[in-house]
Amino acid sequence: MSLIQQRLQELDISIPPAPKPVAAYIPAVRSGSLIFVAGQVPFQDGELMAKGSVPSDVGVEKAREAAAQCALNALAAVAGILDGNLDRITRILRLVVYVSSDADFYDQSQVANGASELMQKIFGDAGLHARSAVGSVSLPLDATVLVEMTLEAE
Amino acid sequence: MSLIQQRLQELDISIPPAPKPVAAYIPAVRSGSLIFVAGQVPFQDGELMAKGSVPSDVGVEKAREAAAQCALNALAAVAGILDGNLDRITRILRLVVYVSSDADFYDQSQVANGASELMQKIFGDAGLHARSAVGSVSLPLDATVLVEMTLEAE
Amino acid sequence: MSLIQQRLQELDISIPPAPKPVAAYIPAVRSGSLIFVAGQVPFQDGELMAKGSVPSDVGVEKAREAAAQCALNALAAVAGILDGNLDRITRILRLVVYVSSDADFYDQSQVANGASELMQKIFGDAGLHARSAVGSVSLPLDATVLVEMTLEAE
Repeated sequence: MSLIQQRLQELDISIPPAPKPVAAYIPAVRSGSLIFVAGQVPFQDGELMAKGSVPSDVGVEKAREAAAQCALNALAAVAGILDGNLDRITRILRLVVYVSSDADFYDQSQVANGASELMQKIFGDAGLHARSAVGSVSLPLDATVLVEMTLEAE
Repeated sequence: MSLIQQRLQELDISIPPAPKPVAAYIPAVRSGSLIFVAGQVPFQDGELMAKGSVPSDVGVEKAREAAAQCALNALAAVAGILDGNLDRITRILRLVVYVSSDADFYDQSQVANGASELMQKIFGDAGLHARSAVGSVSLPLDATVLVEMTLEAE
Repeated sequence: MSLIQQRLQELDISIPPAPKPVAAYIPAVRSGSLIFVAGQVPFQDGELMAKGSVPSDVGVEKAREAAAQCALNALAAVAGILDGNLDRITRILRLVVYVSSDADFYDQSQVANGASELMQKIFGDAGLHARSAVGSVSLPLDATVLVEMTLEAE
């Protein structure tokens, strides 16, 4: 079993199946050692686990979990182009976490921590990344969070 | 005639003139095989082809066309640093499509497809990219769409 | 004294101390010659120098200064992983400037110029970058501006 597989098992986390390519774009693209992942919303078993703005529709804690789910979906997209072997990931480089926000909500960082902390849990030091958290007036499908990930792989 | 030139002619698409560098930043920058393009708004013949939010000011179909125009303007910026030879583009890597959105508009993906589908039409498989579509409360010059592109070139 | 140190002294600009790593993510990450910097808000001496939306809470001129401060904080983050030697920066590649905006504010570019012009002042031609300026409904800690930077270093 790969190291990351083992770590995921210890954490009781399973990577979802890779998202299917849609007509106009694909889940992840590689250029040299860089992998650019398409923006992920918090689909879980085929349904969005959080919809609407924080905090009027969704609380911060639920939004944090949704951010983690987005990051997990990003890893699924990466697995799809790394033959399922996440041990080939050498570094999570960058996350942008867009949070559907009420105009007076300023805790996007706390929401984004859901994604960031999960990366550190799974990858250790290689999971430490640069991050931006920003508020968005609305996101596709009324998702509460959208995460864009860039990473490095061998 | 270059392959991409020929393809553009078949599609009856012409790449606009490269945007002029402004004082403080430039249309596109190269680092190794990566090209980072400045965010493009849907200028067409010197005027924005779509202004305001979707859908209150601009319908989805018009916004889709505007997203395609943004992508075309991004290619113009790239042409400006590739001696006009778009055949040197080896891969469209990443698009971020910001859509000026009403708070209850959730079809940013449909708008972004205007840009994504155009890249696939022009570049085939090399046009398949990772993409994020997000809603924005307002964009520069009241543009309906702003597209940021990252790509790979030889 | 390094060239950039000298230039900073001429401009009477001092790079703030490198931001401290927080639990879940870090200020800057390197991959090959690329450095990805975490989104920076306009902290100055430990306090945000501009809070709220443009223009209802903060005027354009103040927001411009805040954008410049964000860029300076990004350089501080970079200094933290380049042993403090900013001469190793070979190119500022990309800025994304998120501006907390009223729904009818469309001059995000003018705000973003505060960051862009500072990069050019400090780095000359190597400071010329690709840039996106976008409006945001709200930003972390109610910051007026958040800047994400990507750059190239040796």
